[in-house]
Amino acid sequence: MYIACSNDSLIGAQNMDVALIVGGGPGISSSCARLFAKEGMRVAVAARTPDKPVLQALEKEHGVRRYACDASDPVAVERLFRDVVRDLGTPTLVVHNIDGRVPGIFGKTIVEAEPAMAFDTLRNSAHSAFLVGQQAARLMRANEPSSNGAKGTIIFTNASAALKGFPSSGAFAMACHAKAGLAESMARELMPQGIHVANVPIDAAIGWTQEDGSRAHRRAGTTVDDNMADPDHIAETYLQLHRQHRSTWAFEVVLRPWVERW
Amino acid sequence: MYIACSNDSLIGAQNMDVALIVGGGPGISSSCARLFAKEGMRVAVAARTPDKPVLQALEKEHGVRRYACDASDPVAVERLFRDVVRDLGTPTLVVHNIDGRVPGIFGKTIVEAEPAMAFDTLRNSAHSAFLVGQQAARLMRANEPSSNGAKGTIIFTNASAALKGFPSSGAFAMACHAKAGLAESMARELMPQGIHVANVPIDAAIGWTQEDGSRAHRRAGTTVDDNMADPDHIAETYLQLHRQHRSTWAFEVVLRPWVERW
Amino acid sequence: MYIACSNDSLIGAQNMDVALIVGGGPGISSSCARLFAKEGMRVAVAARTPDKPVLQALEKEHGVRRYACDASDPVAVERLFRDVVRDLGTPTLVVHNIDGRVPGIFGKTIVEAEPAMAFDTLRNSAHSAFLVGQQAARLMRANEPSSNGAKGTIIFTNASAALKGFPSSGAFAMACHAKAGLAESMARELMPQGIHVANVPIDAAIGWTQEDGSRAHRRAGTTVDDNMADPDHIAETYLQLHRQHRSTWAFEVVLRPWVERW
Amino acid sequence: MYIACSNDSLIGAQNMDVALIVGGGPGISSSCARLFAKEGMRVAVAARTPDKPVLQALEKEHGVRRYACDASDPVAVERLFRDVVRDLGTPTLVVHNIDGRVPGIFGKTIVEAEPAMAFDTLRNSAHSAFLVGQQAARLMRANEPSSNGAKGTIIFTNASAALKGFPSSGAFAMACHAKAGLAESMARELMPQGIHVANVPIDAAIGWTQEDGSRAHRRAGTTVDDNMADPDHIAETYLQLHRQHRSTWAFEVVLRPWVERW
Repeated sequence: MYIACSNDSLIGAQNMDVALIVGGGPGISSSCARLFAKEGMRVAVAARTPDKPVLQALEKEHGVRRYACDASDPVAVERLFRDVVRDLGTPTLVVHNIDGRVPGIFGKTIVEAEPAMAFDTLRNSAHSAFLVGQQAARLMRANEPSSNGAKGTIIFTNASAALKGFPSSGAFAMACHAKAGLAESMARELMPQGIHVANVPIDAAIGWTQEDGSRAHRRAGTTVDDNMADPDHIAETYLQLHRQHRSTWAFEVVLRPWVERW
Repeated sequence: MYIACSNDSLIGAQNMDVALIVGGGPGISSSCARLFAKEGMRVAVAARTPDKPVLQALEKEHGVRRYACDASDPVAVERLFRDVVRDLGTPTLVVHNIDGRVPGIFGKTIVEAEPAMAFDTLRNSAHSAFLVGQQAARLMRANEPSSNGAKGTIIFTNASAALKGFPSSGAFAMACHAKAGLAESMARELMPQGIHVANVPIDAAIGWTQEDGSRAHRRAGTTVDDNMADPDHIAETYLQLHRQHRSTWAFEVVLRPWVERW
Repeated sequence: MYIACSNDSLIGAQNMDVALIVGGGPGISSSCARLFAKEGMRVAVAARTPDKPVLQALEKEHGVRRYACDASDPVAVERLFRDVVRDLGTPTLVVHNIDGRVPGIFGKTIVEAEPAMAFDTLRNSAHSAFLVGQQAARLMRANEPSSNGAKGTIIFTNASAALKGFPSSGAFAMACHAKAGLAESMARELMPQGIHVANVPIDAAIGWTQEDGSRAHRRAGTTVDDNMADPDHIAETYLQLHRQHRSTWAFEVVLRPWVERW
Repeated sequence: MYIACSNDSLIGAQNMDVALIVGGGPGISSSCARLFAKEGMRVAVAARTPDKPVLQALEKEHGVRRYACDASDPVAVERLFRDVVRDLGTPTLVVHNIDGRVPGIFGKTIVEAEPAMAFDTLRNSAHSAFLVGQQAARLMRANEPSSNGAKGTIIFTNASAALKGFPSSGAFAMACHAKAGLAESMARELMPQGIHVANVPIDAAIGWTQEDGSRAHRRAGTTVDDNMADPDHIAETYLQLHRQHRSTWAFEVVLRPWVERW
């Protein structure tokens, strides 16, 4: 396995980079937290329920700091960033990694979907992205540019539904499209100010680390062993985006497994 | 001025078509109401403040029925459709024509925008589109197909911000992208059920009828007389979409004036 | 069946509109020729083999003028336009309706496709679009604007392959994407000069009129009767685009049957 | 400066990777050749005039092998790949880096552009991409997958004109769109066969190394020092794409400088 690394700036990066991952689970968040910690960053993870075993393991094994936060609440998000600044310093890398779907909304047609569930999905996903992006932008503007010319990086994890409105998925299509639109607006606004904004739709099911430590990255009924996006590799792309020089910033990167149909 | 018309189905259409326009002002809503009424449809317009003079004039001159409705409220939207069905019959053409921006949000950077205003913009625009689209879909499914094979048409008026996330416009980019995603999901879901769904981003400033009856369709500081989208012509496109045969449905039509830069 | 019509400008239009359709067969070209002739235009159709029975029938029944032209040859295209101007007047509506695929290229993988066939497909489709668009633009610039403010309309028929690069279809993906890129460049350049340019990808199989006069618009193995795009309805959209007022021009309209998956 | 690197597979990679860059100049091609050579790959560069000093320097300083090839000629491209296989081994990374514009075509309107120049641009750029992609695909299919699961990587350098058809740029819009369509078709076809295909539009002017060894990366009349895409950083992204694990392949990455307007 290979990783992106930074030979000559590693020591500087080790001391300066503060990463905040909003949304915490056994997939992308954990992979990002592990990789960022290994690369020498100080890492914070915020979640509604920060006591999940998977997050406790991140703290224990990688020194990741955990925060409780309902990211759809403006007051809570403001407090989160204040606490992270106090504990670790101003973030230079913020990942919004919240899917936001209320369980009951899955697979519902436009006729069946509960309005309240659709609304909560929009708030959990899109509105929380706005709140997190806003706080990140406010703080990063005052950062000194790092060796790649960036004051900071804001990455929005997104889904296939940001690229295409699928049937029986109206509420999620709204939320993912909203997040993509926000990211694009922020990119046009903040990049000339030295803040790198990226939208990363994962056009696939995402594998994860199971409780026994093994990886789930095969879909039921298939024979191919890596037909789910491996979150460790997603995390590598996030790190590469963070380290990309500002003369060549990518705004959107769609990631999908080799066997995915699109 | 030319209009799309239907020589051989006009009489049928006159008796059967019920149009509901949600969102009411002097621009697209008024133009649609006038054109649809002239074409023989029974027309309803819903607005938060249905007593605006421009809507009263539609009633007086074109027999348009007015309804009070906060389209971001699920209960109100359900009642609106119930009332329209009772008064005019089941809608066969529903236009969601709500911009939704809270005044204070205009031109705000991501750092300046008030979270509550961003949230209200999302609710006013995107969530109301969900509510209106849902009620329309529920009712139209039971319609008999008309001569063009459609059980009904649902049109979402949208804006440039659905096509591109502009700087200092994050909240509106979210709302417009969300509406586009919803429309696309609904199109994929409902078209095979015989309901035509369309997203129509107007990539321009929109002209309107001024109080003295004259048209505003020139931007300040310009010399070209038709460099704003004329809502009467937008309404014609909506009518053409409604009458389009189901063997050739357009989902998205972007309208812009000839001199617009894009 | 309904048609787009122009009540108050019909007589003017009858005398002034000259339509040239490049590419001629039993589908879109024939439907356009018939509709445009019925609407009072003087109509020309150009094809490599203008003696096809279907084109002879257009001449006999609708007064359509036939021209022989290899549209991928610059000299031939220049002569075509000169002849049409001489015979019918300067075109106000030009439709490029050439698929361009060399038969042997269908379904070939990137590894199998003959380079010469790929190249011919590119020339037949994309390069001919350039040549036809160029001559149309040269002539239309001198036209007087009609009642909708347009000096002329140039429409490129396109295919699903303009929207998406399908596997085993590399050469056609190149040709269709090229045509779309050309159309977009021409639209940005020519619209502010009063010439309406449109790209119309038909995202479906297209029905046609069979020799016995019946319509083929059902795919093998299906039960739905209108699951192919009906070229008569495509022609209506072309006419609507031609008559669209310049304050609200659509550049791209994707047409697909209601039951199409996308 | 940071680079993507592969700690545990470096020695294997050193011995196995063969890179072929088609199109050679002082910008992206040179940067790629240098970086790939430093990473231990055997590197070939093909150009119409392989005797340019900049390419001779690559040979002298980095052991890059030079080949003469008109990439728009099927026979020449077939011979190129045969020669590279004979000299260096089967390529695992192929970069198509040809702009293709005939000098006289720059800035020409649709009315002014010479048909022959438009045609040559299409052939130089799009058709050569087809030929190079085809040979690469033929050979790579027989490769053993490397540690990231890929049999090889094919990267097409593209331009803003692939994303948007600009006015007075019709011929280039055609060529770039065609190349993008080809890349997308090849990606859908070849990714499930283990070959990574990527389209990389550089949405900016590109800096380059000047004869005195200094870098040009400031546009005339600007003050910002890195407002042109730095080809060394573009090369890093290419390397990252080549090393990306097949569970998370990116097809398209648009690169633009932080201050670029889009």
